Amino acid sequence: MGALQGDGSPRRNRQVVLARRPKGLVDVGCFEEVETDVPPLGPGEALLEVRYLGIDPTIRGWLDERGNYMAGVAIGEVVRSNGVGVIVETNNPDEYPLGRAVMALTGWQTHRVLAPNEFPPVTVLPEGTRMLDVLNVLGHIGVTAYLGVNEVAKPGPGETFVVSAAASGVGSIAGQIAKLRGARVIGIAGTPEKCAWVVDDLGFDACIDYKREDVAARLKELAPQGVDVYFDNVGGELLDVVLRRLALRARVVLCGDISTYNLEGPPPPLHNVRHLMGKRARMEGFNTLDHWDRYGEAAAQLARWVAEGRIRHREHVITGLGRAPEALVRCFTGDHLGKLVVEVTPGPEAR
Amino acid sequence: MGALQGDGSPRRNRQVVLARRPKGLVDVGCFEEVETDVPPLGPGEALLEVRYLGIDPTIRGWLDERGNYMAGVAIGEVVRSNGVGVIVETNNPDEYPLGRAVMALTGWQTHRVLAPNEFPPVTVLPEGTRMLDVLNVLGHIGVTAYLGVNEVAKPGPGETFVVSAAASGVGSIAGQIAKLRGARVIGIAGTPEKCAWVVDDLGFDACIDYKREDVAARLKELAPQGVDVYFDNVGGELLDVVLRRLALRARVVLCGDISTYNLEGPPPPLHNVRHLMGKRARMEGFNTLDHWDRYGEAAAQLARWVAEGRIRHREHVITGLGRAPEALVRCFTGDHLGKLVVEVTPGPEAR
Repeated sequence: MGALQGDGSPRRNRQVVLARRPKGLVDVGCFEEVETDVPPLGPGEALLEVRYLGIDPTIRGWLDERGNYMAGVAIGEVVRSNGVGVIVETNNPDEYPLGRAVMALTGWQTHRVLAPNEFPPVTVLPEGTRMLDVLNVLGHIGVTAYLGVNEVAKPGPGETFVVSAAASGVGSIAGQIAKLRGARVIGIAGTPEKCAWVVDDLGFDACIDYKREDVAARLKELAPQGVDVYFDNVGGELLDVVLRRLALRARVVLCGDISTYNLEGPPPPLHNVRHLMGKRARMEGFNTLDHWDRYGEAAAQLARWVAEGRIRHREHVITGLGRAPEALVRCFTGDHLGKLVVEVTPGPEAR
Repeated sequence: MGALQGDGSPRRNRQVVLARRPKGLVDVGCFEEVETDVPPLGPGEALLEVRYLGIDPTIRGWLDERGNYMAGVAIGEVVRSNGVGVIVETNNPDEYPLGRAVMALTGWQTHRVLAPNEFPPVTVLPEGTRMLDVLNVLGHIGVTAYLGVNEVAKPGPGETFVVSAAASGVGSIAGQIAKLRGARVIGIAGTPEKCAWVVDDLGFDACIDYKREDVAARLKELAPQGVDVYFDNVGGELLDVVLRRLALRARVVLCGDISTYNLEGPPPPLHNVRHLMGKRARMEGFNTLDHWDRYGEAAAQLARWVAEGRIRHREHVITGLGRAPEALVRCFTGDHLGKLVVEVTPGPEAR
């Protein structure tokens, strides 16, 4: 079986590839669109038609030659990205059933050939799953928040939980899970709209606008007994400010470092790490990739909470594969609420 | 019962008190000796004749107005210090039996009135315990090493364990416990004599002389797969160097920050904390005070190891209460091996 269209000609794959490496803030000139034939499927393979791409800050790290926890993308290579799509051809109906929706590292392209037994695993979605949800609350964004809060941060009832990038996918869900555990939740975000969303719609107890307020002073006011958990998505100077306000036996979860991803030089040094010793506090790097065995359990619990209305989520959808670069820039310039998603191929929801 | 000598006159208590706060490196001019009457004992109290003082770096923090994990010592107040001595009078024979040796926060003085149920607890030593041992391997120095290694660092067989201030009380014992757990142990110390002691006498696999060698280059050579555990007693620039060399899922135990205790300004900022995220590593402040419930178990295991010759230890004894200030300065200038101790009152070992 080959990857043919109805008229017998090969299907075409549109891709956005890395044209040059970004220096400092990523810009749309770093990318270009190319079009190639979809290759014939080999044994065990299947063809995915990509519907949506998750635009995650971590993509920025993959654009540098050194990469981050995964290798850097080569010049001319399709940009690595999480995505969801529908299986439109298959030589492997057990693993990849025709017509089913799956989540995979699709890359920024319209079509993706799936190999058998990939790692990170390709997830065939339960029937009836909303594809957009899987790029946010029911996928690795939600699971990152779930495991970071429940396995590392472990806020207890009455503890003060602070989360940065509070209106982002991970931040907004992490804060809500901490609320479900009984914590007092304080967000940190960069616009009045974001602060209003997490407090008014998501039920956070407070939110600090770090661009307009003195974070140190506000934290002192909002958390006079200190911060028990800091769920950090941004790193840099904000991390340093919060380190000064830690409570005894505080936990700092280093989940993201978004403030530094676009720096040309090294990130700013931290002055307040020594407070970890006085406070017998813990700071820990966290990556969901280390916890794949817990993925199913986390996603199932998140699905229950979403169904019960206990976790709310929001996607900011930008339409058109060609706008993926623009979406990535917005990831860092920050004028969006919730999870940024690119709609690649409009179409009906898969089974 | 009062605190009287044989001739009926009150006993005299010689004390070393804080005369002025140190600026930068502590010096002997910060202290003065005073002599007072030992007050009559109240109900439940006992009188301790102090034999030995443990000269711990943490004392330096108590000399600053803000203190550290305990409050600062006031001007004119006796310098706070761990010590051991013998009960020479008692109104509380159940808690404080006459003639028995005890460990307590004695302070720098010849006599100390013990109140009932003190916290931190006064420890009545098992009969036959060598008093010096209790200020080192069998006391909070050994217990700090034991719990820091076994409860926080948890090095596994074949893992690389790096310890700073390797020839200090805590450092030398921590390294040996890590060896007993099967780790490869690399010390960091400041003289060739210290390095020779921990390698030749204590069995460390290697030791880096940080004053004469390039620590980053030597670590790369000695730990090409990275550092799995860093047991840090010094903080500052050495910590920053080791953070760059962490292995995946490394643990950094912040046990001491001795390089910064005598700084007039803030400690140097750290540039390499972000590696915790990439390496999914953990950095944690540790203080034995939080683990009093484990003290007896730890001390008992240490006593077995010492009896079996599996843990070696060394005390550097300076004689005379009046030399306690000089001993504290040596704690930081560093020309000693093992645990610094001041012998206050020469005399036979207690029961």
